[in-house]
Amino acid sequence: MSPTTGQLRHKPRLIVHTGDGKGKSTAAFGLGLRGWAQGWSIGVFQFIKSGKWRTGERLAFEQLAAAHDATGVGGPVEWQCFGPGWTWLRSNNGVDQQSMAREGWEYVSEQLRTCTHGLYILDEFAHVIAKGWLDVDEVVSTLTARPGTQHVVITGRNAPREIIAAADLVTSMTKLKHPFDLGERGQAGIEW
Amino acid sequence: MSPTTGQLRHKPRLIVHTGDGKGKSTAAFGLGLRGWAQGWSIGVFQFIKSGKWRTGERLAFEQLAAAHDATGVGGPVEWQCFGPGWTWLRSNNGVDQQSMAREGWEYVSEQLRTCTHGLYILDEFAHVIAKGWLDVDEVVSTLTARPGTQHVVITGRNAPREIIAAADLVTSMTKLKHPFDLGERGQAGIEW
Repeated sequence: MSPTTGQLRHKPRLIVHTGDGKGKSTAAFGLGLRGWAQGWSIGVFQFIKSGKWRTGERLAFEQLAAAHDATGVGGPVEWQCFGPGWTWLRSNNGVDQQSMAREGWEYVSEQLRTCTHGLYILDEFAHVIAKGWLDVDEVVSTLTARPGTQHVVITGRNAPREIIAAADLVTSMTKLKHPFDLGERGQAGIEW
Repeated sequence: MSPTTGQLRHKPRLIVHTGDGKGKSTAAFGLGLRGWAQGWSIGVFQFIKSGKWRTGERLAFEQLAAAHDATGVGGPVEWQCFGPGWTWLRSNNGVDQQSMAREGWEYVSEQLRTCTHGLYILDEFAHVIAKGWLDVDEVVSTLTARPGTQHVVITGRNAPREIIAAADLVTSMTKLKHPFDLGERGQAGIEW
């Protein structure tokens, strides 16, 4: 039997945004808006950033989650930062980024096994794998084995070739021009 | 007198997302979330798309605008599509895309002159200029002369070199892998 149009339009995607340019994370959040509007549950998991610093994108998704709770529009949103301040297992003195990344990935792996979200944004996850903090083969096998139609977006520089091979859609954000090269500062509303 | 940190962090930016890859528009919408969270007025102007087709990103920004109106969080949002269905000057029979783009740019130019928004997302505008539908020198001179700290993001393939020269930050979204190349269909929540 041929698949229906609905089936053709709802295939699980593994999407990678890599490269040295700006726009990897913002493009993931833009996809998050589309998924949210479809009514999907959105999981945002930031592997490097501290949860103590509340970004504009987080504030916006909190408002979208509140709109969902109040009126049923869109989907729910979970947002976790697996950076300093996240884990309850150790103090923030002597923070061990690798352990936090591993705990974070275990947390996400369990959600993938149980189909918690419709879209997962794994922010800076490519960078974490490239650092060698996780076993890339285990990561690929968990991603590939995920059940249902869960979409996953991975961002970060230096995405390993195993991740690129496993992905359905890969975009490299390439820097052509950036004001930091001229010694300029990050801009409120642009960098966060 | 040296500029303050506040001044250094609030310089007007002209940002371009170009290239053949996915993520040009979604990254612009991600920036829109950051600007909205800063309390800026956000103007989204889509130069190709028809307003008749309501996208997920539009639904999400409508909710953010409603949150602003209700509680004062974030900023207001204006969203216009300068494609079929936009203009009131002619019927949709014999739609003239070039005239619609020109009217759209006049509309945006007037807003830039009067500082209507804090961030302008000119979606597919690079494509419109590359088509030769607008005078690129006039566009650059209007953008360069804009007063205040208005940020502008331009998306679209084939951004002309004059636009790239005038921009502060340019990213090329480069396609490494895309499921359309395998004959697959667009996905709900991913492509719109």
